[in-house]
Amino acid sequence: MSEVSTLTTMQSLCRDRIDARLSQWLSSTDKLSPRLWEAMRYSVLLGGKRLRPLLVYLTGTGLGASLDDCDRPAMAVELIHAYSLIHDDLPAMDDDALRRGQPTCHMAFDEATAILAGDGLQSLAFELLAHPDQHNGLAMVRVLAQSSGPEGMVGGQMLDLAAEGQFFEGTARSLEERSANDPAWTQQALEQIHRHKTGALIQASVHLGALAAQAPDNIQQALIHYASAIGLAFQVQDDILDIISTPEVLGKQTGADIAHDKLTYPALLGLDGARSLAATLVDEAEAALSGLPSSLDPLRTLAHYIISRDH
Amino acid sequence: MSEVSTLTTMQSLCRDRIDARLSQWLSSTDKLSPRLWEAMRYSVLLGGKRLRPLLVYLTGTGLGASLDDCDRPAMAVELIHAYSLIHDDLPAMDDDALRRGQPTCHMAFDEATAILAGDGLQSLAFELLAHPDQHNGLAMVRVLAQSSGPEGMVGGQMLDLAAEGQFFEGTARSLEERSANDPAWTQQALEQIHRHKTGALIQASVHLGALAAQAPDNIQQALIHYASAIGLAFQVQDDILDIISTPEVLGKQTGADIAHDKLTYPALLGLDGARSLAATLVDEAEAALSGLPSSLDPLRTLAHYIISRDH
Repeated sequence: MSEVSTLTTMQSLCRDRIDARLSQWLSSTDKLSPRLWEAMRYSVLLGGKRLRPLLVYLTGTGLGASLDDCDRPAMAVELIHAYSLIHDDLPAMDDDALRRGQPTCHMAFDEATAILAGDGLQSLAFELLAHPDQHNGLAMVRVLAQSSGPEGMVGGQMLDLAAEGQFFEGTARSLEERSANDPAWTQQALEQIHRHKTGALIQASVHLGALAAQAPDNIQQALIHYASAIGLAFQVQDDILDIISTPEVLGKQTGADIAHDKLTYPALLGLDGARSLAATLVDEAEAALSGLPSSLDPLRTLAHYIISRDH
Repeated sequence: MSEVSTLTTMQSLCRDRIDARLSQWLSSTDKLSPRLWEAMRYSVLLGGKRLRPLLVYLTGTGLGASLDDCDRPAMAVELIHAYSLIHDDLPAMDDDALRRGQPTCHMAFDEATAILAGDGLQSLAFELLAHPDQHNGLAMVRVLAQSSGPEGMVGGQMLDLAAEGQFFEGTARSLEERSANDPAWTQQALEQIHRHKTGALIQASVHLGALAAQAPDNIQQALIHYASAIGLAFQVQDDILDIISTPEVLGKQTGADIAHDKLTYPALLGLDGARSLAATLVDEAEAALSGLPSSLDPLRTLAHYIISRDH
């Protein structure tokens, strides 16, 4: 399909662009604490799909913004993502020693540096958006703060830890207990975790792109609906890949969710049920795009790619 | 002195106002994760002098802003301060079990919750400033992000940890080694830590107040100079109080710096030398205020209070 090859090319170009800008911006030269900047730089440049910046670029340019207009929000959302990974990997949280095959920040540096690197990346993200030349800068700060904060990503991470039994928290605590008896309730609770932990920032990426292009409200709302669907589809596919992929293709251990007895969509709905949910979500995403300019078609292709990807 | 009694009254009124607003804003009702909001609320409402909000209110209202105009920046700067204390207290950082006589956040809750509560408070601070009705909102985000980020507070905390020998970091590492031989160099290094770790946010408080009042650039610059001087004076007096005060008056252990062999101003300059430095800094602060409206006089009184306070 030529749309797929166009998307693949754009994805690759956007990754090059964002990597170059992040690398330049996170230089440790002439800085108060070079070690802090090295830790931030190390974590941000570990790699990754750069899905969030891609969403900013595709949405923004599809609505008439220049690539330059999209750079700052694309960088900001990736810095928030990187900070969340650093803190998630800490011993007190998920306690992960490796990410993408490399030592996590607190292993490569130390725990105190990792905490501060995460804190610093969060400030830098808002500093980027608060540039006087940024169109809709203040609205962008609001969107990024809300989506990454206690009622967004950070709140979702709390629910996830609670669901894993790290501490008692209202409804989420009984996720595992109730899952056998009440699948509908459990699916709702699982969705609530994902919609906040990963979905909120994916939604923010699309919203930031629309704000960069100064898109009208109704277009913003349609795109937020699109992003909400693909954000969840992305997580469902992640759960599926943990079962059907191989470590060579995926670049990380597979079967980890089962080994940790983690509640996932395939565990709850079966593999076919999970695939069917992912397909429904992509239909929902496509429907949300109908009536929007055809220059946004790469977002349509991206929705299909999200559930057909093998890594 | 009547100026002092006016200042004491204003301090008390500002504390009541900010505490009421923070308490209301940090309600855990109808929230995604009530536990997260309880942890944030607990940490923010542990108390404290509320020096930073006071600086926002005194500066802002002294330049013609209404108290309402100052509420959001006053809250935002206090949320940043509170997040930094939560993270500083973590086992991987200063490992403190008590703050103001109460269990620190990770002791009252748990470490994961404390990390996320700090992260969430940082987002909330920027969300507050990004309100569409806030005068100079985007400039405020920039000031707060820069002052709290890697080239401000977070960077200063890195230098402080490095100076304590937690890890190797360029110049700061040799602070203790060089202090005996090269007092001038050491004083400069010590000043660099404090100007960033605590000074940057004190400076931001005054700057935010000036922005709330939409003050012209030259007034902003004079006030930043004032704040830079009182920020350092505050730290020098803190070091002095650790020696001359009693736990009953200070509300925390005294002699802790000596016990931890920490490099302080009295250790470097002697008690008289430290007192003389503090007095010089207050002179500098007063000079910076000369020519500014007399409605800013409470800032003058505050500068004197900072070095005459006994707790």
